[in-house]
Amino acid sequence: MADPRFFTNHGPFSLGQIADIAQAKLAQGADPELQIRDVAPLDLAAGDAVSFIDNPIYLADFANSAAGACVVSPAHRDRAPEGMALIISDQPYLAYARIAAAFYPYTVQGDGIAESAIIDKSAILGDRVAIGHGTVIAANVEIGAGAILGANVSVGPAVVIGEGCKILDNVTLSHCLIGDGVTLHPGVRVGQDGFGFVPDPSGYVKVPQVGRVVIGDNCEVGANSTIDRGANRDTIIADGCWIDNLVQIGHNVELGQGCIIVAQVGISGSTKLSDFVAVGGQTGIAGHIKIGAGAKIAAMSGIMSDVSAGATMAGIPAMPFKQFFRQVAVLKRLALERGKKT
Amino acid sequence: MADPRFFTNHGPFSLGQIADIAQAKLAQGADPELQIRDVAPLDLAAGDAVSFIDNPIYLADFANSAAGACVVSPAHRDRAPEGMALIISDQPYLAYARIAAAFYPYTVQGDGIAESAIIDKSAILGDRVAIGHGTVIAANVEIGAGAILGANVSVGPAVVIGEGCKILDNVTLSHCLIGDGVTLHPGVRVGQDGFGFVPDPSGYVKVPQVGRVVIGDNCEVGANSTIDRGANRDTIIADGCWIDNLVQIGHNVELGQGCIIVAQVGISGSTKLSDFVAVGGQTGIAGHIKIGAGAKIAAMSGIMSDVSAGATMAGIPAMPFKQFFRQVAVLKRLALERGKKT
Amino acid sequence: MADPRFFTNHGPFSLGQIADIAQAKLAQGADPELQIRDVAPLDLAAGDAVSFIDNPIYLADFANSAAGACVVSPAHRDRAPEGMALIISDQPYLAYARIAAAFYPYTVQGDGIAESAIIDKSAILGDRVAIGHGTVIAANVEIGAGAILGANVSVGPAVVIGEGCKILDNVTLSHCLIGDGVTLHPGVRVGQDGFGFVPDPSGYVKVPQVGRVVIGDNCEVGANSTIDRGANRDTIIADGCWIDNLVQIGHNVELGQGCIIVAQVGISGSTKLSDFVAVGGQTGIAGHIKIGAGAKIAAMSGIMSDVSAGATMAGIPAMPFKQFFRQVAVLKRLALERGKKT
Repeated sequence: MADPRFFTNHGPFSLGQIADIAQAKLAQGADPELQIRDVAPLDLAAGDAVSFIDNPIYLADFANSAAGACVVSPAHRDRAPEGMALIISDQPYLAYARIAAAFYPYTVQGDGIAESAIIDKSAILGDRVAIGHGTVIAANVEIGAGAILGANVSVGPAVVIGEGCKILDNVTLSHCLIGDGVTLHPGVRVGQDGFGFVPDPSGYVKVPQVGRVVIGDNCEVGANSTIDRGANRDTIIADGCWIDNLVQIGHNVELGQGCIIVAQVGISGSTKLSDFVAVGGQTGIAGHIKIGAGAKIAAMSGIMSDVSAGATMAGIPAMPFKQFFRQVAVLKRLALERGKKT
Repeated sequence: MADPRFFTNHGPFSLGQIADIAQAKLAQGADPELQIRDVAPLDLAAGDAVSFIDNPIYLADFANSAAGACVVSPAHRDRAPEGMALIISDQPYLAYARIAAAFYPYTVQGDGIAESAIIDKSAILGDRVAIGHGTVIAANVEIGAGAILGANVSVGPAVVIGEGCKILDNVTLSHCLIGDGVTLHPGVRVGQDGFGFVPDPSGYVKVPQVGRVVIGDNCEVGANSTIDRGANRDTIIADGCWIDNLVQIGHNVELGQGCIIVAQVGISGSTKLSDFVAVGGQTGIAGHIKIGAGAKIAAMSGIMSDVSAGATMAGIPAMPFKQFFRQVAVLKRLALERGKKT
Repeated sequence: MADPRFFTNHGPFSLGQIADIAQAKLAQGADPELQIRDVAPLDLAAGDAVSFIDNPIYLADFANSAAGACVVSPAHRDRAPEGMALIISDQPYLAYARIAAAFYPYTVQGDGIAESAIIDKSAILGDRVAIGHGTVIAANVEIGAGAILGANVSVGPAVVIGEGCKILDNVTLSHCLIGDGVTLHPGVRVGQDGFGFVPDPSGYVKVPQVGRVVIGDNCEVGANSTIDRGANRDTIIADGCWIDNLVQIGHNVELGQGCIIVAQVGISGSTKLSDFVAVGGQTGIAGHIKIGAGAKIAAMSGIMSDVSAGATMAGIPAMPFKQFFRQVAVLKRLALERGKKT
């Protein structure tokens, strides 16, 4: 399925190998010697491809799929079309991710140090670092082994980039320390001044922004997202956070481990998210507040005050998720009743 | 009016020529020999300029305008000041667009292949391609005749760019096929990984993103917008879509022909918009849903479920536009009533 | 506190000097000879650091702080821990900003004209201009004395940049005139085409965008924000405006002096903000409307019509702030009452 111009297929694999890769088991009747040549979605898969069904809205596609094999949960297996080899997993999407990574291992192309890159002689580069064309590495930068930097990236003085990072094209870094295994997608800006100023009679006075951005290991930051450096402490993104595109993270913000921040979210200055908080797209979070561990925030919410650990919130201003939908329902009914009276 | 440092005026034109260009007709008494030297808005136009009135909120400006000529609909012509030459059109803004394009044809400056551009020798460039300073063209890229790429652009391996495209400065492209006549404004990111991962006991596992972005002909994408490549199928932008600045388009999203997506909209993964859908600014659209042809979504709406063809929606969560404003009115009245009681 | 890899500490200062710098006075008992070596937040400050308390939510941190000195308002001074030297100010944050600027003066590193920069020979550069690696300066550009341009910036033909500007890395400028002392953070896009088109039978016709962007003195624009040029007049940002990250400003928009635009706000075409308007994050403002001087718009509001000078607005669609919170309270109560009945 995947266009060979862009992706190299590392298959084929036998169905037995695939079940092992998926850490799942073959259903009875599935032939472990069946050759699987690709991954594909249910509606596009041919007989030599493996697919997956996770979201029940695609059950009809599942029932009609020509996929030779499919990862499926025990709950949905009886909806399979005849002749399809089944791989049974309680987490079909995770199993699929493992299979897809066997066919198409995640790689970012790096090709040594481009001649056109401008690298200050004080910079320290680990083994196998790749640096793209036109990329600028300022004084005292440190880049860990195996890191790959794309084209036209700008890395400011003294920035530290960990091992195996992938810093894609047109990224700007300054005043930051980045852990190992971090991916920054194109156009990410890390470490610029936060939005700090205070009025005085002559206009606004800039408040010096003298903190850093500290990003932990194995984080991913989406295209054109912006992470401002701290004002007087660090902006911190702990290990394993996944941040989507066009997200704004203000100065002094702290994200605990494993937070998920969907596209276009804005987090205002000095707010702290505990571990494993998930924030839906376009949500805004006010400054100087705390979000407890494992809290889930619906898309397009407006968080104006602290949120307890484990809570699920929605609305502007945000409230518990059930309360929000009760209010939505009540207002709908009231408008209908009033409409009748008029 | 237009600053000659930035724009070259291709006038003057006689009023008769202008009416022809506009595909409109001169009102009685308008002198077809009148020389028109520029376009200008109503409040800034002098006697040698042509203006237009389309939005009724500017009718007072129209009545007081010193413009020598003006495009106007039959409905508004009697509000014209004395002595103004009128060009009558049912679509004054369209007529104005044609006139303005005669004075100031759309051009993006290209000047051959910059010496500092880095172009892989396997890349295939059509006739009259222009490539700006510091731009990087990777292996196996194809660029159609007459395409213009700005400065510090990065084009990843095997990307295909159609004829006559304008790829402006600091754009990043990878894993994508772009049709003819497409304009990508500065800082656009196309083809990066979508936001795909799944939790496992060790953290989050990245789901390989092995689709492409396929953009049709005559599309325009605004500054700093991001279009992720597909996860296991393509992200598709059909012909003639206009996408504004800072828009996020997730993996596997499909836009039908002629969709209009205003600034800061976010469209979540695997959602499909049919032809000619119009989405107002800052709207969020959930994943895995379908928006029918010709639907109109108000600004700042939250679309959580399928929308029928031709529907007009507003609110978070979204509902039919009239229902939304009825609810707004009902809540306002209730708050007033309750306020009195307290 | 500040990492010496990134920031040069210009201290120490005596407490007496610091009070002078802050334009504030020492409380009785504070030793003017005390050596202060750094600024720090309350919870991280040691005995040789000066901190500040402004937001009452940090009063507990204040009471427990080990800071040697602290700027405090008269209202909060009695909450100070024993032994802390106090600097009394009615505007502690402003006083702190002055102190921090003495320790860490705002500087952007510039280092002459990089050899790899591409500068058209018609460009006019003032004294002490610095231009970073890979930056492209087109024909007829003018850059004022002391301006610093970062790496991989693109400056289009005839752009004017004032004295002392800081144009950071990966910025794109075209069709614009920029005043003195302006800071544009990484990835800012100024002067590209606005979102102007009109349907005709063959699809959408582009409306030529022949205005400019004119930015006044002492403005700041945050990372990855986008400011489109005017359609047929200028897009204007008056003196002293502060614009945060990922903000969208449409064609023909006018901002009066001293406006504050928080992250991810979108302002639609032809809308005018008077002086000193403050707009909270993620707010959307419709096109062709007017916001009066000094108006304050809460975060995540949807402004659909004119706003009076001095008004405070919230909600989607926006209404006066108090009315919005009354409606929120009324709906909450109604949902509770209805919940009981069911």
